[in-house]
Amino acid sequence: MDIKHYMNDLGVRARAASRAMAKADTAAKNKALSLIAAAIRREAAALRAANELDLAAAKAAGMEAAMLDRLTLSDKAIATMAEGLEQIVSLADPIGEISNMKYRPTGIQVGQMRVPLGVIGIIYEARPNVTVDAAGLCIKSGNATILRGGSEAIHCNQALAMLVKEGLAGAGLPADAVQIVETTDRAAVGELITMPQYVDVIVPRGGKGLIARLMQEATVPMIKHLDGICHVYIDDKADLKKAVDVAFNAKCHRYGTCNTMETLLVAQGIAPQVLPALAEQYAGKQVELRCDDAAAAILAGYPHLVKATEEDWSTEYLAPVLAVKVVADLDEAITHINDYSSKHTESIITEDYSRALRFLREVDSASVMVNASTRFADGFEYGLGAEIGISNDKLHARGPVGLEGLTSMKYVVFGHGEVRQ
Amino acid sequence: MDIKHYMNDLGVRARAASRAMAKADTAAKNKALSLIAAAIRREAAALRAANELDLAAAKAAGMEAAMLDRLTLSDKAIATMAEGLEQIVSLADPIGEISNMKYRPTGIQVGQMRVPLGVIGIIYEARPNVTVDAAGLCIKSGNATILRGGSEAIHCNQALAMLVKEGLAGAGLPADAVQIVETTDRAAVGELITMPQYVDVIVPRGGKGLIARLMQEATVPMIKHLDGICHVYIDDKADLKKAVDVAFNAKCHRYGTCNTMETLLVAQGIAPQVLPALAEQYAGKQVELRCDDAAAAILAGYPHLVKATEEDWSTEYLAPVLAVKVVADLDEAITHINDYSSKHTESIITEDYSRALRFLREVDSASVMVNASTRFADGFEYGLGAEIGISNDKLHARGPVGLEGLTSMKYVVFGHGEVRQ
Repeated sequence: MDIKHYMNDLGVRARAASRAMAKADTAAKNKALSLIAAAIRREAAALRAANELDLAAAKAAGMEAAMLDRLTLSDKAIATMAEGLEQIVSLADPIGEISNMKYRPTGIQVGQMRVPLGVIGIIYEARPNVTVDAAGLCIKSGNATILRGGSEAIHCNQALAMLVKEGLAGAGLPADAVQIVETTDRAAVGELITMPQYVDVIVPRGGKGLIARLMQEATVPMIKHLDGICHVYIDDKADLKKAVDVAFNAKCHRYGTCNTMETLLVAQGIAPQVLPALAEQYAGKQVELRCDDAAAAILAGYPHLVKATEEDWSTEYLAPVLAVKVVADLDEAITHINDYSSKHTESIITEDYSRALRFLREVDSASVMVNASTRFADGFEYGLGAEIGISNDKLHARGPVGLEGLTSMKYVVFGHGEVRQ
Repeated sequence: MDIKHYMNDLGVRARAASRAMAKADTAAKNKALSLIAAAIRREAAALRAANELDLAAAKAAGMEAAMLDRLTLSDKAIATMAEGLEQIVSLADPIGEISNMKYRPTGIQVGQMRVPLGVIGIIYEARPNVTVDAAGLCIKSGNATILRGGSEAIHCNQALAMLVKEGLAGAGLPADAVQIVETTDRAAVGELITMPQYVDVIVPRGGKGLIARLMQEATVPMIKHLDGICHVYIDDKADLKKAVDVAFNAKCHRYGTCNTMETLLVAQGIAPQVLPALAEQYAGKQVELRCDDAAAAILAGYPHLVKATEEDWSTEYLAPVLAVKVVADLDEAITHINDYSSKHTESIITEDYSRALRFLREVDSASVMVNASTRFADGFEYGLGAEIGISNDKLHARGPVGLEGLTSMKYVVFGHGEVRQ
């Protein structure tokens, strides 16, 4: 198989399909999504059978348990995929919305129209549900998509792709609007990320290793997320109960997520009160605390205490481990965060109005919070309805990326025969 | 001089200054802009003297007349620079604006805040006025900037940079918020476009050659504009007078601009009426018409008629030359435009409501117009107040880029102690 030729062909088909999708009306897009959801429910047994082939191959290849778990398509996962599509049906269609239409002194009227980006390439690892979630978001936002899932899930992804194509056809939309890369050859990824003539943006979903590798080679722009080194800063004007609740939740609600707190900063004025109260909570979860000298002095005797090194301030643990630092004040906290965070999500705990406003304005991260757990940084929690990923970048989309992140604004001008003087 | 070390130092200073600029209040930013305008007026003689040094060197090096003209800083150009800054003062400050603040079922309030991008690198050629225009837009939008002007204008740019720094200091803002690359070594550009740790976006202003070269090497994202292959489509439901007025203006108002029409498409039903009327106008300007067979048959006898080749449909002439094609209908026009245009600006001339809506929705370009000259695609004409450039890209900013294009939206969450369940 000539991978270059194969990927080029996918690209040509995707570009052609993207034009039809851009002008598809809301009813057709919603009909496709509903048909796909119905087909997924109808073919649940066949999907599980395809998934069994993937699981058998993965077990034979010695895949570890956590990965096997992500690869498994349970009855519940199948139902959730179908429900996810129906949720996307219920979201407003962003395409075609015209805003800010204003008359100019020359007589022309100028505004902006929301339009699809065109062709979205999505690169992901084991989870087969991404195939359906991503296809659904791209269909609703009027884009064509090329999906490159993990080779471990190839049978399952092919089975899902057939159902997606069935739904598209049933709604009179081009089947090429959603294409799966059917080869497991890694060279296909290399092609996908270097064909800007056919692909407008790449959304990589996966580990830091995958994304760092793609960044080296890609010539297509990416909406990407690298790591989540999130901070909570407990100000000395914090409400003690809120501080303990939020700092415990931000670390312990889930360890492996990108919006989990990895570094806790505490103002020196409140550290002697809040740190022991928090340590009591963390002790129940055996959370290891990597402390600077001041925090270590306050927490002497904590059973899982380790002295922090410089490296700890820039480490994403994804585990029951937390870096803890005592800072003089808000200024030191903001400076530390802007120096070490991955610009994902940071939260201040304070009852002080002016400090809250300063934190919101001066912390340069995609999500900035007051008195709330960093775990809220998520497309569903923010009301986007669904998310295709989270962006650490500043250009285009920042933070959780929903339907709007897959769109762009073009200028529209209503004239009445005007010419430029 | 060690260029790598020098550029790295500029980057570190710019990043530090960007933090101060991000929190600078509107009054300080406006004061800096007013002080710079005043300093430019006060030092007009010194600026002209610095410019004379550049002009003398350029003449000695045999620079051609058109380039010398762009390099010249006349009294009028100096006054225009100062006025431009005062216009930027009068624009609303986009930074800090919070929008769409909504309660979520969990109790948190989620919205978005407009924030600066950080550090903007601007690469441009001869025109010294870009130094001041770009500095002004970056200051108002709370960004730091590194300016790399053409080596031909180095004396003039250094003189302007001193006045900019004087204004920043007078307003209590960091002088490093605007830095000029003081070396004319081309390696400096190579460094600037490959230091994403210090530079958030590059805005290249210059010819297609410059930008194509930068695209090969840049690892920092760019807001870039390559070429303007703009179309006017005269529908068979067009008002004949509007059609002639707009198609004449779009070609002949100025030849060298990116929003000038380069291809005219005419519906076959109206071509026999509209083409001769237009040719009469174009003949007065000696516009060469590169015609397909159908247009050539109608225009037989036109003094500057040439048969079009395939290459003409994708050529940006920037000259009194126009490609002319007769198409069957709106569908063929839209397909031709989406195949050949550079996605800059296209206009339909029609009185038909449904066709106007279809053209607006289905043509995939940064500006899409009805019954207006493509020459209106411009930041000032659109009411942006000023423009840093025009983007042909789909991500982030599309079309004329003003202050908002130099900003980004971060999520802000107002909590009351909420934790994730």
